[in-house]
Amino acid sequence: MSKEITSREQDYSQWYNDIVIKASLADYSAVRGCMVIKPHGFALWENMRDALDKMFKDTGHVNAYFPLFVPKSLFEAEEKNAEGFAKECAVVTHYRLKADPDNKGKLIVDPEAKLEEELVVRPTSEAIIWSTYKGWIQSYRDLPLLINQWANVVRWEMRTRLFLRTAEFLWQEGHTAHATKDEAVTEAKLILELYADFAENWMALPVIKGIKTASERFAGAEDTYCIEALMQDGKALQAGTSHFLGQNFAKAFDVKFSDKENKLEYVWATSWGVSTRLIGALVMAHSDDDGLILPPRIAPIQVVIVPIFKGEEQKNLIDIKVKDIVTQFKASGISVKYDDNENNRPGWKFAQYELQGIPVRLAIGARDLENNVIEVARRDTKEKKSVSLDGIASHIKTLLDDIQSNIFNRAKTYRDEHITKADSWDEFVKILDEKAGFVSAHWDGTDETEEKIKELTKATIRCIPINNELENGVCILSGKPSVQRVLFARAY
Amino acid sequence: MSKEITSREQDYSQWYNDIVIKASLADYSAVRGCMVIKPHGFALWENMRDALDKMFKDTGHVNAYFPLFVPKSLFEAEEKNAEGFAKECAVVTHYRLKADPDNKGKLIVDPEAKLEEELVVRPTSEAIIWSTYKGWIQSYRDLPLLINQWANVVRWEMRTRLFLRTAEFLWQEGHTAHATKDEAVTEAKLILELYADFAENWMALPVIKGIKTASERFAGAEDTYCIEALMQDGKALQAGTSHFLGQNFAKAFDVKFSDKENKLEYVWATSWGVSTRLIGALVMAHSDDDGLILPPRIAPIQVVIVPIFKGEEQKNLIDIKVKDIVTQFKASGISVKYDDNENNRPGWKFAQYELQGIPVRLAIGARDLENNVIEVARRDTKEKKSVSLDGIASHIKTLLDDIQSNIFNRAKTYRDEHITKADSWDEFVKILDEKAGFVSAHWDGTDETEEKIKELTKATIRCIPINNELENGVCILSGKPSVQRVLFARAY
Repeated sequence: MSKEITSREQDYSQWYNDIVIKASLADYSAVRGCMVIKPHGFALWENMRDALDKMFKDTGHVNAYFPLFVPKSLFEAEEKNAEGFAKECAVVTHYRLKADPDNKGKLIVDPEAKLEEELVVRPTSEAIIWSTYKGWIQSYRDLPLLINQWANVVRWEMRTRLFLRTAEFLWQEGHTAHATKDEAVTEAKLILELYADFAENWMALPVIKGIKTASERFAGAEDTYCIEALMQDGKALQAGTSHFLGQNFAKAFDVKFSDKENKLEYVWATSWGVSTRLIGALVMAHSDDDGLILPPRIAPIQVVIVPIFKGEEQKNLIDIKVKDIVTQFKASGISVKYDDNENNRPGWKFAQYELQGIPVRLAIGARDLENNVIEVARRDTKEKKSVSLDGIASHIKTLLDDIQSNIFNRAKTYRDEHITKADSWDEFVKILDEKAGFVSAHWDGTDETEEKIKELTKATIRCIPINNELENGVCILSGKPSVQRVLFARAY
Repeated sequence: MSKEITSREQDYSQWYNDIVIKASLADYSAVRGCMVIKPHGFALWENMRDALDKMFKDTGHVNAYFPLFVPKSLFEAEEKNAEGFAKECAVVTHYRLKADPDNKGKLIVDPEAKLEEELVVRPTSEAIIWSTYKGWIQSYRDLPLLINQWANVVRWEMRTRLFLRTAEFLWQEGHTAHATKDEAVTEAKLILELYADFAENWMALPVIKGIKTASERFAGAEDTYCIEALMQDGKALQAGTSHFLGQNFAKAFDVKFSDKENKLEYVWATSWGVSTRLIGALVMAHSDDDGLILPPRIAPIQVVIVPIFKGEEQKNLIDIKVKDIVTQFKASGISVKYDDNENNRPGWKFAQYELQGIPVRLAIGARDLENNVIEVARRDTKEKKSVSLDGIASHIKTLLDDIQSNIFNRAKTYRDEHITKADSWDEFVKILDEKAGFVSAHWDGTDETEEKIKELTKATIRCIPINNELENGVCILSGKPSVQRVLFARAY
């Protein structure tokens, strides 16, 4: 099984695709750029979604659902947002097919069913949501509105990669409305912290919290906060963004509220989202050449138990013991699968679960029963050892926690070792080419220099870290003065 | 508040819209035929979804996600299915907008970004899923596939109603693949039972399980099983369908498997779905002229507590007591909200929660504290009484169960009283016009008669009940012989 996976060294990009496909996370589809999320991948997404959803609700947010389509006239209303997404919009122009008169059994678009106004399939929902908020907000009493939606969105990407960049993807998008600028900024930062908490404590993915430069901002935002992660090939990946939108959408859709003094004011806004792209980040941050490695806290199955036996008698004895173990695990909140499918041999199963990233695999045979032990194999380090069945649930519980921290620490060590300071252009280019990772360097703060660096090296400014240290220096490209270092990297 | 709701007697249809809008379940949107599901409505949908999702998983199903778009050539492949949905398809023809050269700030569809092949926004996903299954199924070892997805779908309806009939709606669609016909039929029936269980035990909605006539079948199905509910105006509503698809999709997409004897066979299929339409059914089955009535098992909030006080001192004492009550409730699994918002008076809150259908409202004042009691008001019967605070959680727990059964029994009594036998055409028409509800009558089994009855009365055959009693008779319209009664009704 694992032999079919290309190694990272050989071809990192192919390694990634192999894992996604062979660990049954996703599959290509008949629709250009769209993927099928397979059951194993979707179960992972469900666990991520449920954890995030609880965090949103615990911080006062509620879910709602807004239309898939955005009429073109609304889409246009916030000009920068429209400009930012216009080039990648799927557009619905007709609402009916009819039989093709020249080709029996085939259908054609019915030219008589042309829409008066085209509908854009949402690439993001600010426009449709703010056109709705106009009807919901009159007074300060209606604020804040703290609404999230889980939805599919479409951005017509020319070069797609499973999970990382697909024409359709699943995400959550929060859209909040506030009476004051301060409150909106506080919300955008709260979500940044929430995303970082989720990435680090659930996905075991260390992230840098930062703020985007003007040119990397979300189209229509005043400020974009982000979490940036590092993949094993040294490329960065933007894992989530939270935008302070100022009053841009309120002005575009004329959303005003009367404050306590009865004065009309435009509403302040934020929006924020993470998507199925996170699954791509997860794969690339933790996995190895034998397959996926999943953090226990979001793994669809945490433990798999494989029986090893000859004959029915041994099998029956193992079944009885495993039933007892499963009960103990469930009582301890450990998700477990007993795979006694007789169509496959234990070795095949071991390889399969290794490939799929199941954090712990237990194997139990007749001799283990006699000795009251079980073989415990952890996926992250591949260590195997024989463990007493007495107190096995608490042993596994501790082990799962240990795997969770180990995966995080491993990724963090790699990440920390790959933040390198560069103080000259040559050094900057050399690090990018030879070591990769984040390069911490001075930049003169202009769009022109940022653009030029991107042209020359394909590296972009990933972010200006939150609470960045101030330090006088000179821009690595222009030599102009700079007050702080920013983080550059080549990125997904 | 409640005064703003049109009464059922005055205008049933307006009453329905008033409740949906004023109880904040949903709102109209800027997109023709599409609705916004508001937080209260969405929380209800989440509870319904979670209950169903657990039932699916408990019966061995897993979730996945397939693309929103269906290329036209795949959409055409199963001819009946294509024919059935072609007239109501949103079609994506372009993938880019560009600046309008004649109109600054406006966008137009870029004619150069025309798709080679149009994409249909999924009205249902058999085509895209079966084109995918072709790659997943080779051997009997790959079967059964028991996959469900939660998704949005689009059917371009000309006349829309919030929840009941919208251009975009949310649903789940199960798509299973089996090695034998028997197994597929068993699956379709299992889901029928599951849907009926969910409708009756969670939504408190009594349903009749049946099978559709050929003309009412899902386009592409061999058999459509359904659950049919009755609304308070005597009109029926199809609440869920489960289809045995035979080998139609396997043949259209050439999906074969090698059986144990290594012989190639086409795969057998089912598909099944329920949608946000169920929320419409819920509203119309249970609510009254004062607003929504929600079954406790799916209510977003089961109990609301309103403090009644003068001055801070009283408020503080109430707060302490309520905190204790809330802790007891949470420990008993009762979802509860303490509404001590000082912007609104208690009377306003009472009306508001009545309108929103919260099953139980508690009110507590200074004198109640002294007497160690609390006022308990149930939404379904509007009874109010003073109840001791000792053992309040278990009292409320029992009350919630009682409300759940009472709502179900009330709907069931109404439904049972509205199944009327008709043995002549005049009787049939008279019942439809004067009493409404289901009419149990003989039908000769032909499409022609069914169509004629529909033309004459707008009544359709809702279903042939499962385990229907055989009884010789004559068709109410044609006078031809018939072996069983079927259920007619006017329907949503």
